[in-house]
Amino acid sequence: MTTLSPTLELACELIRRASVTPLDEGCQQLMMERLAACGFNVEPMNIEDVDNFWARRGGEGPVLCFAGHTDVVPTGPLEAWQHAPFAAFVDDEGMLHGRGAADMKGSLAAMLVAVERFVADHPQHQGAIAFLITSDEEGPALHGTQAVVERLAARNERLDWCIVGEPSSTSLVGDMVKNGRRGSLNGHLRVRGVQGHVAYPHLAKNPIHLAAPALAELAGEHWDAGNAFFPPTSFQISNLNSGTGTTNVIPGELNCLFNFRFSTESTVEGLQQRVETILDKHGLQWQIDWSLSGLPFLTEPGALLDAVSASIRNVTGRETVASTTGGTSDGRFIATLGTQVVELGPVNATIHQVNERVLASDLDLLTEIYYQTLVRLLAN
Amino acid sequence: MTTLSPTLELACELIRRASVTPLDEGCQQLMMERLAACGFNVEPMNIEDVDNFWARRGGEGPVLCFAGHTDVVPTGPLEAWQHAPFAAFVDDEGMLHGRGAADMKGSLAAMLVAVERFVADHPQHQGAIAFLITSDEEGPALHGTQAVVERLAARNERLDWCIVGEPSSTSLVGDMVKNGRRGSLNGHLRVRGVQGHVAYPHLAKNPIHLAAPALAELAGEHWDAGNAFFPPTSFQISNLNSGTGTTNVIPGELNCLFNFRFSTESTVEGLQQRVETILDKHGLQWQIDWSLSGLPFLTEPGALLDAVSASIRNVTGRETVASTTGGTSDGRFIATLGTQVVELGPVNATIHQVNERVLASDLDLLTEIYYQTLVRLLAN
Repeated sequence: MTTLSPTLELACELIRRASVTPLDEGCQQLMMERLAACGFNVEPMNIEDVDNFWARRGGEGPVLCFAGHTDVVPTGPLEAWQHAPFAAFVDDEGMLHGRGAADMKGSLAAMLVAVERFVADHPQHQGAIAFLITSDEEGPALHGTQAVVERLAARNERLDWCIVGEPSSTSLVGDMVKNGRRGSLNGHLRVRGVQGHVAYPHLAKNPIHLAAPALAELAGEHWDAGNAFFPPTSFQISNLNSGTGTTNVIPGELNCLFNFRFSTESTVEGLQQRVETILDKHGLQWQIDWSLSGLPFLTEPGALLDAVSASIRNVTGRETVASTTGGTSDGRFIATLGTQVVELGPVNATIHQVNERVLASDLDLLTEIYYQTLVRLLAN
Repeated sequence: MTTLSPTLELACELIRRASVTPLDEGCQQLMMERLAACGFNVEPMNIEDVDNFWARRGGEGPVLCFAGHTDVVPTGPLEAWQHAPFAAFVDDEGMLHGRGAADMKGSLAAMLVAVERFVADHPQHQGAIAFLITSDEEGPALHGTQAVVERLAARNERLDWCIVGEPSSTSLVGDMVKNGRRGSLNGHLRVRGVQGHVAYPHLAKNPIHLAAPALAELAGEHWDAGNAFFPPTSFQISNLNSGTGTTNVIPGELNCLFNFRFSTESTVEGLQQRVETILDKHGLQWQIDWSLSGLPFLTEPGALLDAVSASIRNVTGRETVASTTGGTSDGRFIATLGTQVVELGPVNATIHQVNERVLASDLDLLTEIYYQTLVRLLAN
């Protein structure tokens, strides 16, 4: 039997704990013990039913935090998996199979092993190293990173740089990092009409007919052009429903759910006002329940992005691409502390799918990238 | 106790038979016996589970047919009725209460009593009198008037004029007759898109966004201007649905049910082509299942409408209005025989509602109107 690298061994150990969100199943205990063993001050922050911890090693000076989650998404149909999802099987081609292999127990293992090595090599490093780990990133995420960040903010905890272990790579490890995320704004639009019989349309007001030109205008609107870091803001209607099911009744109301993914070129208030102006222009009787999922954040080129890019170049020979595309992540909460946040992790091709897997050797490359980033930012 | 008029007595007898569609509960048997007693050749035409009959009295020459249905719509919540729906109660203000009082057992009683009087007064009348009665007008109506008309057509039965007893009056008996009905054409439109994640709209095609401008154009389209007898053709979307229910998924398909009420200025093929041209113009990937509920029909001024109008004027002092508005009726089937068809019945204010009722004296006026129409058209 081949000997597994320290990162791979830890990744397997974490995958074998079936920590389907919001369960942790002892993953954090294992991490906390190893961090304590190399001099971290470890602080569990369990909030409601969610396990979280904060750990810190070092004194004054800049703080580099590693952030991530121990929970994983459900497996889906077990019979569709080639290898049992919690078996952590490494196949002949060197692929590590298992739920969480890519998202993100592989990253957690790489962080921990990189930090252990760095602390051993540089026991008197500058500044501080920290870990912010939650077991509720894949679920409602109310009592996870967001709540921990609130506590850290309340006590003025310093947090200069943060590497989130989300699987940011697209086909080769390190080919992409995320240096920000778009904002996400949801709206539930109701358009009122007057119900009636299709044979007597003059006695009714059809909300579908009234709303159609406004929806067409919203769908065709140019919200902003984006900027060097963000693609243009996009608007998408995800659900549109009106009607009683019968064919001879003009409905009384139309319901519409829509979402903005917005760049730093637009504001929540600005988008809301523009939508409302369009609805008013079309003379609609409307109501919108707005709900903000997350503000956009952006880490502009600087010490963290430079250190990460140089480490990727050195370890893989690749020029990484910094991107702000994709869904939201816990990075948006951490960024509210004024922290530079970069997401860097393995290839995301199989995340949230059956047969989630990652190239085992990528986790060792990732360990080396994290290690070199620590060296660049905190070595003496 | 007040003595009831013959029409009112028969109306009560019919209402007491709880003939909720498609049941007849002996109403037709009662009518057939009385028609046979005054010389009609009576022919039951039961088709599948639906009771119908055809009755005819007379020889060669023009045929005036009375048409109607013995079935009634369900009562709805019994506790909401002021008087039991099948009790046929006449209150102190002379209102006859009961399911079917207006739609249309009152008319059936008026027709029968008018014909009995006419036959007694004019045993050697010209032409012929007929009855076409079904117990499935309020239901699917597949084995009712439509099926009887097919049999009559197959044997070349002559049918010059037809009075359908549908409650055509709006506030005073005889204030309106229906001399035609618009056509009704249904469509089920499906617009195909490509499903995806709202965060990656460039990988998806949102069918709501694609369809909105086309729906706006359809809703704003001027289909025709109508004519002297018909209001303009109207288009109404009754149901519009798209979306998976979740807020982060761009749906793959949009479904839309729509209906045309169309005048004789438009044709089925013409409307279909215009809709399809608009969908194509917007570059949609679409599919429509069309279903024709009924072609429009029109009875232009002539012998029947003249006789009916003159009788209404003579009995009530009112100038009736001939209209083609409202829903469909069995008149559309009978008109396919080349028959002049007019709908004439009591006030329709309470039909299909709880507490259906009609002014009892209106049924006597209606009897007199039917009688005078018989005289004008068939008396020697």
